[in-house]
Amino acid sequence: MTVPDEPDSFDVIVIGAGPAGENIVGRAVAGGLSTAIVEEHLAGGECSYYACIPSKALLRPMELAAEVGRVPGLGPLGPVDAAAVLARRDEAIANLDDSGQVRWINGVPATFVRGHGRLAGPRRVEVATPDGGTRTLVARHAVAIATGSRPAVPAVPGLREAEPWTNREATTARHVPRRLVVIGGGVVACEMAQAMHFLGAEETVMLVRGRRLLERVEPFAGEMVAASLRSAGIDVRFGRSAARVERPVPGGPVTVHLDDGSVVEADEILVAAGRELGVRDIGLETVGLTPGGPLEVDDSMRVTAVPEGWLYAVGDVNGRNLLTHMGKYQARVCGDVIVARAKGLPDDAPALRATADAVGAPQVVFTDPQVCAVGRTEERARAEGFPVRVVEYDIGAVSGAYLLGDGYTGRAKAVVDEERRVLLGVTFAGPAVGELLHAATIAVTAEVTLDRLWHAVPSFPTVSEIWLRLLEAYGL
Amino acid sequence: MTVPDEPDSFDVIVIGAGPAGENIVGRAVAGGLSTAIVEEHLAGGECSYYACIPSKALLRPMELAAEVGRVPGLGPLGPVDAAAVLARRDEAIANLDDSGQVRWINGVPATFVRGHGRLAGPRRVEVATPDGGTRTLVARHAVAIATGSRPAVPAVPGLREAEPWTNREATTARHVPRRLVVIGGGVVACEMAQAMHFLGAEETVMLVRGRRLLERVEPFAGEMVAASLRSAGIDVRFGRSAARVERPVPGGPVTVHLDDGSVVEADEILVAAGRELGVRDIGLETVGLTPGGPLEVDDSMRVTAVPEGWLYAVGDVNGRNLLTHMGKYQARVCGDVIVARAKGLPDDAPALRATADAVGAPQVVFTDPQVCAVGRTEERARAEGFPVRVVEYDIGAVSGAYLLGDGYTGRAKAVVDEERRVLLGVTFAGPAVGELLHAATIAVTAEVTLDRLWHAVPSFPTVSEIWLRLLEAYGL
Repeated sequence: MTVPDEPDSFDVIVIGAGPAGENIVGRAVAGGLSTAIVEEHLAGGECSYYACIPSKALLRPMELAAEVGRVPGLGPLGPVDAAAVLARRDEAIANLDDSGQVRWINGVPATFVRGHGRLAGPRRVEVATPDGGTRTLVARHAVAIATGSRPAVPAVPGLREAEPWTNREATTARHVPRRLVVIGGGVVACEMAQAMHFLGAEETVMLVRGRRLLERVEPFAGEMVAASLRSAGIDVRFGRSAARVERPVPGGPVTVHLDDGSVVEADEILVAAGRELGVRDIGLETVGLTPGGPLEVDDSMRVTAVPEGWLYAVGDVNGRNLLTHMGKYQARVCGDVIVARAKGLPDDAPALRATADAVGAPQVVFTDPQVCAVGRTEERARAEGFPVRVVEYDIGAVSGAYLLGDGYTGRAKAVVDEERRVLLGVTFAGPAVGELLHAATIAVTAEVTLDRLWHAVPSFPTVSEIWLRLLEAYGL
Repeated sequence: MTVPDEPDSFDVIVIGAGPAGENIVGRAVAGGLSTAIVEEHLAGGECSYYACIPSKALLRPMELAAEVGRVPGLGPLGPVDAAAVLARRDEAIANLDDSGQVRWINGVPATFVRGHGRLAGPRRVEVATPDGGTRTLVARHAVAIATGSRPAVPAVPGLREAEPWTNREATTARHVPRRLVVIGGGVVACEMAQAMHFLGAEETVMLVRGRRLLERVEPFAGEMVAASLRSAGIDVRFGRSAARVERPVPGGPVTVHLDDGSVVEADEILVAAGRELGVRDIGLETVGLTPGGPLEVDDSMRVTAVPEGWLYAVGDVNGRNLLTHMGKYQARVCGDVIVARAKGLPDDAPALRATADAVGAPQVVFTDPQVCAVGRTEERARAEGFPVRVVEYDIGAVSGAYLLGDGYTGRAKAVVDEERRVLLGVTFAGPAVGELLHAATIAVTAEVTLDRLWHAVPSFPTVSEIWLRLLEAYGL
């Protein structure tokens, strides 16, 4: 059944109700604009149900068990109760029920429209609603695309037919497979391989096309994670990929034929080999764009190729930084700049430009050891022509780390711009380093000089004293 | 026996080989100056053996046990093995053997002199050595006093005779008393009461003269700690003090008569009622000073009342900030400025002034919940006339905190200078907040504006996202 096409008008229409889309709504409505937001699947987005949130819920017990193992006098801990961990994960993802998120949107207040949204010419969005109807929305000021991304599945013969796990199935798993093959060596691959292994996957094999894990961070960090995965018993194979996959019985065992002729049998196969941006089937062609790569935007999140500046793209879909917090950051900029422009106010304040995108986005990987980084790697800084000096230090040599437990192993690396004496990038790898990152994010983003950082005294005995050691090692 | 008084000459003489003294040595020698350091008790100082290090070694299992209790699927943990915890504490304090520290000093290289050092006129230090002799040291450039502090024991009848525990005996305890009375409500009192209670002190009573715990930090933090202590079963009594103490049999039970007429019986009594600065019996009168209060210094750590500027005072003894890391900070300044002055180089660079002392030193209290703060409290900022605005936020409402475990409770408070839009102070209280502090220390010390902090995006889903929430609550 098709209902009559009666357009609704809003100041702003957002397609995609993930964290980025929701933040646009929040800022736009706070600025006095009427706003509608369209979501095909779950309000709250990939992050809330299939990525950051459930993965951390699955990883937290592993982190803590490792910490207990380093502290004499506690434990021993019995075997982990995987069912209890999965149950808390279910709570964390609200059992895949987005009614709380929809209530939040309605309360902003904004109009939530369930269905598949696509552009239908300038400022016009058509939504295919679940009842088979179509609803047309018209934007007075702006349309923002925040459709995120979905897992890419490589064109390996038999792989798609084998119904592999992606991040979605892995993070929402109802059971832990006894044998798991993971394709990929990035964040999702490392985190999920480790989580599943801890929760009971006895045979876990990772097939990593390249020569290292976590290719976007400093090499030492990926090496530390590889060593940790291997010492936990995970079979990490570098320079290997799947040539062919067979799963004769749906839900039954999977056979993976590798490019070296060997074969791995498993109960599940997880594909964690990158993301496909949500640019297809959203009507880009109706506004003169060719769906394909990321939607190029300026620092105010405006799609540069569309005339009159009414189209914005925020989050994964613009390809700037595929990270929830960066999507939210862009969304705050986007919502605020749409408000400024709608009201004819100045639109060029620093808060209306997502300048931090270019600095090197902060990121925490919740493996054991944790890895976190912000800014540029040494390699990138050199490639960009900065006069670089590098300082490294063993975090385990800091008293605060020793006090966390026996055998703490960690490493810090700072990339310094010798000319301006500011930090271009900082990387930490080690247990529980994730919360160390924000200090680096402030220092890198605000370009605090080393000479000022020297007076920011880390408290003794925290792990943060690594900051003192790095500055001393630099020569201050 | 008195050995002949044959003076040794050094560029720099340091009295007191705690962390502050050791850091002066390190910097002075690195700058090319010959240096001697005198220590009566243990090289490494109060912090290494009787304060920061052992207290954190004792508290870490408690912190971790609480975290495990919040994460479904782990545990239950059996009862803590106090003997194992005390054994790791012993390892952390090197079994009170300072030979490793002495080796470090010798290797700098510097001259370590064991004995009680006292000034004997300008640039002259006499050391009463353990063999009963005297050794006289003469400084060509500078003498630095880094004699720290010792626990103050209030003049309560019978208290001193009862041989109470101070931080020294508590942190190095060979056993956990079944019943413990704690006099005090500051950091040592809270940390040690909680550690001992966790390790097995079934009846723990705290007598707090004032109306709150941790009086130097924002009131909400002390209230959270008080609630936590009480819910763990510790009997916290505010507005109460000991009027009289009896311990008829040395090592036997202690009877404490309170100022309200009530009586508490215990097996040990811990006095944690402030510090006495190490200014007595160090010969201050020989250089025209009257021993008593703190040694007043300028920002280069020079004692202002002594002519010719050869005397420096670093760490607790100058009363600026009685914290290990601030003593070390002052020591770096002091060592470097002595080098600059000895060489006739400019001595007024920003790195040669301990300007951070006046900002409000960072500090972490390792109770459960942890408390940490830097900069000014709201009260202090208002008293100093700043145009203050305060922002508070519930840390438990941040996704990253929820992911740490069930029932995470925490609070953050930021004190903003409305005129300059910078942070004057930040306080966090909650489980595992200690490593959040350094970001605040950088922001407060370097006076990063809120508008720049807005672009320092906290990684999702870390607890550091509290930064975003605080800035949003402020109105950004």
